[in-house]
Amino acid sequence: MCAAADEPGEDFMKPEEAYRWLLDYSTTTALYESMKSLINWDQRTYLPRGGHSHRAQQIAAITALLHRRATDPGFAEMLAKAEASQIPGQPLSDEAVNLREWRRKYDRATRIPEPLAVELSKAASQAELAWQSLRRENDWKGFLPYLEQIISLKRQEAAALSTGGEEIYNALIEDFEPGENAKSIEVLFDKLADATFQLLEKIEAAPRKPDPAALQGDSPESVQKTFIREIIAHLGYDLAAGRIDRSAHPFTSKIGPGDVRITTRFDPNSFVMALFSSIHEAGHALYEQGLPAEHWGTPRGRSISMAIHESQSRMWENMAAKSPGFWKHFYPLACKHFPWLDKIDIDKFLFALNEVRPSLIRTEADELTYNLHIIMRFKLERMLIGGELESEDLPEAWNTVMKRYFLPLPDDYSSGVMQDIHWPAGAFGYFPSYALGNMYAAQFYAKAEKNLGNLQEMFEAGDFGPFLGWFRQNVHSQGSRHLPRNLVKAATDEDLSADYLIAYLKQKYGRLYEL
Amino acid sequence: MCAAADEPGEDFMKPEEAYRWLLDYSTTTALYESMKSLINWDQRTYLPRGGHSHRAQQIAAITALLHRRATDPGFAEMLAKAEASQIPGQPLSDEAVNLREWRRKYDRATRIPEPLAVELSKAASQAELAWQSLRRENDWKGFLPYLEQIISLKRQEAAALSTGGEEIYNALIEDFEPGENAKSIEVLFDKLADATFQLLEKIEAAPRKPDPAALQGDSPESVQKTFIREIIAHLGYDLAAGRIDRSAHPFTSKIGPGDVRITTRFDPNSFVMALFSSIHEAGHALYEQGLPAEHWGTPRGRSISMAIHESQSRMWENMAAKSPGFWKHFYPLACKHFPWLDKIDIDKFLFALNEVRPSLIRTEADELTYNLHIIMRFKLERMLIGGELESEDLPEAWNTVMKRYFLPLPDDYSSGVMQDIHWPAGAFGYFPSYALGNMYAAQFYAKAEKNLGNLQEMFEAGDFGPFLGWFRQNVHSQGSRHLPRNLVKAATDEDLSADYLIAYLKQKYGRLYEL
Repeated sequence: MCAAADEPGEDFMKPEEAYRWLLDYSTTTALYESMKSLINWDQRTYLPRGGHSHRAQQIAAITALLHRRATDPGFAEMLAKAEASQIPGQPLSDEAVNLREWRRKYDRATRIPEPLAVELSKAASQAELAWQSLRRENDWKGFLPYLEQIISLKRQEAAALSTGGEEIYNALIEDFEPGENAKSIEVLFDKLADATFQLLEKIEAAPRKPDPAALQGDSPESVQKTFIREIIAHLGYDLAAGRIDRSAHPFTSKIGPGDVRITTRFDPNSFVMALFSSIHEAGHALYEQGLPAEHWGTPRGRSISMAIHESQSRMWENMAAKSPGFWKHFYPLACKHFPWLDKIDIDKFLFALNEVRPSLIRTEADELTYNLHIIMRFKLERMLIGGELESEDLPEAWNTVMKRYFLPLPDDYSSGVMQDIHWPAGAFGYFPSYALGNMYAAQFYAKAEKNLGNLQEMFEAGDFGPFLGWFRQNVHSQGSRHLPRNLVKAATDEDLSADYLIAYLKQKYGRLYEL
Repeated sequence: MCAAADEPGEDFMKPEEAYRWLLDYSTTTALYESMKSLINWDQRTYLPRGGHSHRAQQIAAITALLHRRATDPGFAEMLAKAEASQIPGQPLSDEAVNLREWRRKYDRATRIPEPLAVELSKAASQAELAWQSLRRENDWKGFLPYLEQIISLKRQEAAALSTGGEEIYNALIEDFEPGENAKSIEVLFDKLADATFQLLEKIEAAPRKPDPAALQGDSPESVQKTFIREIIAHLGYDLAAGRIDRSAHPFTSKIGPGDVRITTRFDPNSFVMALFSSIHEAGHALYEQGLPAEHWGTPRGRSISMAIHESQSRMWENMAAKSPGFWKHFYPLACKHFPWLDKIDIDKFLFALNEVRPSLIRTEADELTYNLHIIMRFKLERMLIGGELESEDLPEAWNTVMKRYFLPLPDDYSSGVMQDIHWPAGAFGYFPSYALGNMYAAQFYAKAEKNLGNLQEMFEAGDFGPFLGWFRQNVHSQGSRHLPRNLVKAATDEDLSADYLIAYLKQKYGRLYEL
């Protein structure tokens, strides 16, 4: 294949050849990334205590390798060649989507100096490890230097990534939510917070109260495991292409096609924690298992953002698995495994499951006040990155904002500023995705119901196939075709709005608390 | 740092700088290798069924990366610079040992074309996977094409590696036993085989017979796990720097310093299989845990050969853990965990443990006839690689040689030519290491006893420290300082001989069978 004879001196490679080269390159990079996924999975599940220092070196080495590939000038050269072709003319074609995402990521990667990328990865790995023991010991003073170092490095990263004009925090959001920014998020979040305050006030004044004891009963770990496997397999999670393990903090890891793993943790006195954390992770895993395998290794075959990811996990966890229809179907199975449920009325169980009780710990929060945790962390980390707040002042700021959001004040650091893994792990800009995910979830759910009919009736009949099918078609199979805001538009014919989530919450808690 | 002014035109890099560059390069390569170790470990322990095809791609990608690094011309340039220094003048210095091994491995690697290396790795991974199910189904016809492909590729590899003159099989042995060759092995093996035949004849004629029922009794997996952990920890295996998992075929995996893992498998009717396979693997792991951590990532900090590795595992498994002293110490603990042992006399247990009974399956063979399995596989694979035997004729050749070695004939392929993972995994040249390992073990053991005094008395007292200490000093801490034949010379002041193993076997079985 040569260039046309009338173009002497031009490079001989055709754009299609450049595109094929990029595909190969992208797939090989994805193979290295999937090795890093496995290394991270192992670190959080089976790594022996003595292996952590070596593991940090492994992670630094693979991170450096990935950074070199992400910033390879040869890649940019090929990318420019392919961009000069007809491909971008069809912006929603697989090829154009790949070019768009390769460009976006290449431009971002080349703005971060390699030593900074390596230092960040190492610092985050060490801080995460230190956090695990320091949190147990409530040792804020010991934790502070790690946090300061991470924030200093993240500010450098954000500054390097920023193209100017905007607040630098936006550059970190972009890692999780391409096309998103703090100002637009703030508008959505303020609306959601106001509606939440109003609803919370009514709930706290309501005479009807759930009984949390309805969720407590002997729950041997082995029985929980069997029960959970039955449920998530029924929802569509393919256990032959995944597995469930224990970890301190549940997570989902896509190693590759045919290998999407989840983890959970167990409470011997109630199956509720393990079940819902597993359904949450299974929601992530269903998204990953539903991505188009034929596009694996390219952006087209990849999930588009954390909020879209969270929309899947939180929708299964909260909107589906805490609904009456779901339990009308699964309650008999639950009673079979946990005979103490026989004595508990299903409505009592459901009410307890959906109890609203403002909590110290985000991961233990109910569906309503969870968003307040997210919104306050968004405000705090925005100030931390923006330089309006320093790490040493964080505990005080934490209390101030908890109070303002009607959340209880912690007695110790472990239940306060040190409760989350995100900051020590360097994941600033991640928190907003959770609440955005809830908004996406509610908007998707409403549209799915409009298309499919009464979802609660389907759940009650144990028929989750059409519901999953709607997401397979409108979300999972889309991969990175659309940026998140465009994806919701394509799937629901509307822009992202807080209204669906607010309406859902009002309807749900109105019914439960008889408001 | 510049070159001397009187050497204009010379490269400016000093040999010490080249050496430091090589150290860095070697350590980074070792980090990638340790990722491959983790990928392999996961494949054999926790990989979901659906993930195998992706896993083969991951392995191919990391193998290609490692091959490129192993054949990097830039590395050869630096190596030549460092070799031109004073370093090789002190051949047992850490630096000279590293240069020697880097050179040996670079020269080998550059003789294998990259496409062949990648194809071999992929073919071996696929053949190993196919073998797992085809073996279960006794499907020799299905397995044959895989074997033919592997042998064809291994012949190509051996031919590419051979420097001429010698039989090409030697080039494959060199991968496991540097400095070794088929002719020298044959001399040792023939002597060992003759002595084994004589001993076997006497044992079969002996009136005294062990009772295998002495090893059978209820052995719940969870109890076995606790028992095994107690024993191997007592022997010196650091569980905080390792772990024990289940796999179909037990193995040891060094992920890195502080992370050396073993696997085992369980028989609910006897703890013997899991215990001895665990002690075997713990023997490998003790070697790896005893290597000098400060040299990790360089040859000086690496094990020198498979036979030396096997000498450690087989010595702990057979010479230590099947001896009277060992059980005089551990029998009470075993009785505590497995109460049915109370009714069994320790001598009866020990005799049953050391029963000689020629078997179909190598991994189930007793200590004496195990060597015959190895010797026959050595003869067969030598012919397969040399082209004197083709895969399709293997079952017939198998039977012929089994008969000649007084071993029983298989009724099916699964218990015959398809029983071992080594050939589908492409590990030709590996088998001899097992019997060589037994010879090294016996020679080391005799010398350790000469240095330390009565080992059986120490074992009986539960005092394994000095014994492990002898190996830490004379074998483990040496890393790759000496080639295997030189290591045994340095540690025992004698050349490798079959005599120590023969004497040990005669003494042991003479006592047990009252010959």
